[in-house]
Amino acid sequence: MDTEEEQPIEGLLARRALRLRENLGAGFAPPQGQVFRLSAGVPDPATFPLEELSKAFRAVLLQEGDQALQYGGPYGYPGLRDILAKWISEREGLPLSAENLMITNGSSQALDSACFAFLNPDDLVIAENPTFPLSLRTVYAHDARVFGLSLDEDGPDVGKLEMVLKKADREGERVKLLYFTPNFQNPTGITFPLERRQAILDLASRYGCIIVEDDAYGELRYEAEAVPSFFSLAGGRGVIKLGTFSKTIGPGLRLGWVLAAPKLIQAMAALRTDMGTSPLLSHVVAAYMADGHFQQHLKDNISFYRGKRDLFLSLLAEHFEGVANWRAPEGGFFVWLELPSEADELVAEEALKEGVMVSPGFRFFSQDAKHIYLRLAFSFIHFDHMETAVARLARVARKLLSAS
Amino acid sequence: MDTEEEQPIEGLLARRALRLRENLGAGFAPPQGQVFRLSAGVPDPATFPLEELSKAFRAVLLQEGDQALQYGGPYGYPGLRDILAKWISEREGLPLSAENLMITNGSSQALDSACFAFLNPDDLVIAENPTFPLSLRTVYAHDARVFGLSLDEDGPDVGKLEMVLKKADREGERVKLLYFTPNFQNPTGITFPLERRQAILDLASRYGCIIVEDDAYGELRYEAEAVPSFFSLAGGRGVIKLGTFSKTIGPGLRLGWVLAAPKLIQAMAALRTDMGTSPLLSHVVAAYMADGHFQQHLKDNISFYRGKRDLFLSLLAEHFEGVANWRAPEGGFFVWLELPSEADELVAEEALKEGVMVSPGFRFFSQDAKHIYLRLAFSFIHFDHMETAVARLARVARKLLSAS
Repeated sequence: MDTEEEQPIEGLLARRALRLRENLGAGFAPPQGQVFRLSAGVPDPATFPLEELSKAFRAVLLQEGDQALQYGGPYGYPGLRDILAKWISEREGLPLSAENLMITNGSSQALDSACFAFLNPDDLVIAENPTFPLSLRTVYAHDARVFGLSLDEDGPDVGKLEMVLKKADREGERVKLLYFTPNFQNPTGITFPLERRQAILDLASRYGCIIVEDDAYGELRYEAEAVPSFFSLAGGRGVIKLGTFSKTIGPGLRLGWVLAAPKLIQAMAALRTDMGTSPLLSHVVAAYMADGHFQQHLKDNISFYRGKRDLFLSLLAEHFEGVANWRAPEGGFFVWLELPSEADELVAEEALKEGVMVSPGFRFFSQDAKHIYLRLAFSFIHFDHMETAVARLARVARKLLSAS
Repeated sequence: MDTEEEQPIEGLLARRALRLRENLGAGFAPPQGQVFRLSAGVPDPATFPLEELSKAFRAVLLQEGDQALQYGGPYGYPGLRDILAKWISEREGLPLSAENLMITNGSSQALDSACFAFLNPDDLVIAENPTFPLSLRTVYAHDARVFGLSLDEDGPDVGKLEMVLKKADREGERVKLLYFTPNFQNPTGITFPLERRQAILDLASRYGCIIVEDDAYGELRYEAEAVPSFFSLAGGRGVIKLGTFSKTIGPGLRLGWVLAAPKLIQAMAALRTDMGTSPLLSHVVAAYMADGHFQQHLKDNISFYRGKRDLFLSLLAEHFEGVANWRAPEGGFFVWLELPSEADELVAEEALKEGVMVSPGFRFFSQDAKHIYLRLAFSFIHFDHMETAVARLARVARKLLSAS
C-alpha cells in the first residue's frame, strides 16, 4: 500500500522516539546472504529440543487447552512460576515462591518492565560500559539517560560508581537503576568476582538503588564454581534479576522472567499493559520442565557449548597469536577480542566481504567508545564452519593491521 | 520469601505508576469460586481448535523449528504478516502487504505500542465514554490524560468531538490519538454507522489526529453487512487498526497485530523493546491459516456465538421484560443492560452472592460515570447454564429495583 503518510510523522512522535533516533542512529544492519555469523548472541538451532517441545505442546493442548488458551493475567501462569521458583530457589539458596516471579516475553521485556515501572523521563541509569546495546536501547526508549561505567578485568569500576552516585546525591538526583550482567558479561565475557559484587551491592544499598541483574547467560557456565548472584547476596532485596529461556531452549519462545521481591514484582505487574505473556507457551514450558527434560537439556547444552568454546579458543590461539588479545570466558557465548589498533569497523567491514560477520566493539559503548575490540560469538556458527571463519577473519585482520 | 523491602517503594516508582493508582484504584476483583461468568469478554473454550493447533505446532517444530525457535525481530514473522495482509486486504478492500503489519502480543500490546510511540506525558487522548477499561488503563499507564466522549445510540458525539479538538487546537495542544471501537463497541455493543465514521474521520483528518481503531471483535458479526472500517474509509492513512486472534482462536496465544501505513508501523517497531512477539506462535498460526483452517473456524465461530447471542437475547426477553432495556448487538460478546435506577454495583454484588458475575457499568466510564448499566457477556457461559444465570440475575435485579 501507498507508503506516503499525508502528515509528516515527526510532529506525532513521542519525545522518546525522537531521542532514540539520536542515541542509536540507524541501528544494526541485518545479516545478508550466506555468511558465517560470529556476530550475534543467538543459540545453535542444533540445541533446540524440537521433539520434546512438540510432545509438550500436544499434551498441554489436549489436557489443559481450556486454561492454556485462555487469558492468564499480568504475572503469568502460576504453574510455571511455581516450577521456576523451585528451580531458582535451589540455585540461589533462597526460599522463593511464585510471588517472586513475573513471566515476561524474554528478558528484554523484563528489562522494559523495570524501566516502565521505575523510570521517569531524564532519569539517570548507570550501566556497564561496554554493555549489551539492546539494553541501552531499552533505557533510551524510556527517555532516560545512561552513565556508562568503565570496566576493568574484574568488572565495573567501583570507585567511579561511588563517585557518580555521590555526585547525583549531592545534586538531589535519585539513581534508581543500576544495570549489570555479572556473569560472562556481554560483550566482554567478564565474570565479576564475589568481592566486586559485594562492593557494588553495598553502594547500591547505601544509595537506595535497585540493581537490575541481567543473567541471560548465567546458566551456561562451562567451568569453575558459580559466583553468588547479586540477588542471592542481597537476600533477594533491592535486586531485580532477569532470566530467560532464550539461550537454553530457544529465543523464538519469547519467554523469560523477572525475579524480585514481591513488592517490586507487583509494581511491574501493575503497569503491564499487554495482558501477560502467552499462557499457552508458559504451560508448555512448565510441562517440559516438570518432566525433567529441561534439567537434562541444560546439562547437554553446557557440554555442547563448552565444546564450541574450546574449539573456538583453540582456533583463536592458532590464528590470532601475536595479532590480538583475548581472555577465555567461563561461560556464555562471547569472546572479546582486543586489536592492537583502532580497526574494529574496518575489520568488520572487510571480514563481511569475506563472508564472516562480527560485531565491531564500538557498538557496545554508551560513551567514550573504543574502536579496538571485536565481539565474537561462538554460539551460532556450525562446528564445521568454525575453522574457516576464524582463519578468514584472522587473514583479514592481519592484512589490515599490518597495513595500518 | 520475605515480602518486606527495606526501602519504601513509593520513592522508586515512576510518576506513571503513582498516577495509575489514582486513576484506577484497586483494580478488578478476580473471579472466585464456582460462578456463572457473564462478566468478561472471554471466548468459550469449546471453540478452541486444539487438535488443529496441536498438528500445526508439530508441523512447525519439525519442519521449521530452526527458524521458529530463533529470534524474529520487532515486526514479527514475515510469513504470518504476508498471510494476514492477504486476508485483511480482502476484508478491507485495500492492497496491503507485510509492511502494513506488526505482530503483537494481542491487541492490548498493539495499543501499548501506539501509546509508547506517540504519547508524551500529559498528552490528551480522546476515547469513547464508556469504553474498555483496560484500554483506558494503558493510556493512563503512559501518563496521558483521557477525555471521554459520550455516546448516543450511533456512537460518539461528533459535535462534542469537534468542540474538544477545537478547544485543544486553540490552546496549542495537539491531540494525537483518538481511540474508538466502532464494531460492537465494548461495552455498549453499538456499531457506528457509515456516516458517523465518515464524520469522525473528517475531524481526525482536519485536526491531524491518528484514529486508533480497536477491532478485537470485528470478525464476529452475526447479522447484517459489515460497515467499512475507519482504516478502509481513510485509504489506510492516519488510522492504526488493532486486531487479534484472542477472540477467534484463543487469548492464551497472546497474538494480535497492528495494521497501519508503513511509516506508522516503522515508528512503533522502532520503539519496541521486547524483541518481538513469539516467532514460534506466529509460525504456528501462519501454518494454521495457510491450511484454510482459520477461515472455516471463523465461520464456525460466527455460527456458534450467533446461537449464544440469540439464546441470551431470548432469555433476556423472557426474564427482564419490563425491568431493563437493551439492544441486540450485531456482533461481539456483549449486551449493555440499562436499569431503571442507579443500582449497577448493588445488583452486581448481590448477583455474585447468587453465583452470577456481571460487570457494573460504572467501571467503563472515564468520567461522568453512570450507575444504571450492567455489561453482560454471553460469550463464555456454557449454553446449559445460560438460563439459570439470566433467571438468577433477573430475580436479584427485580428484588433490588422494586425495593429501591
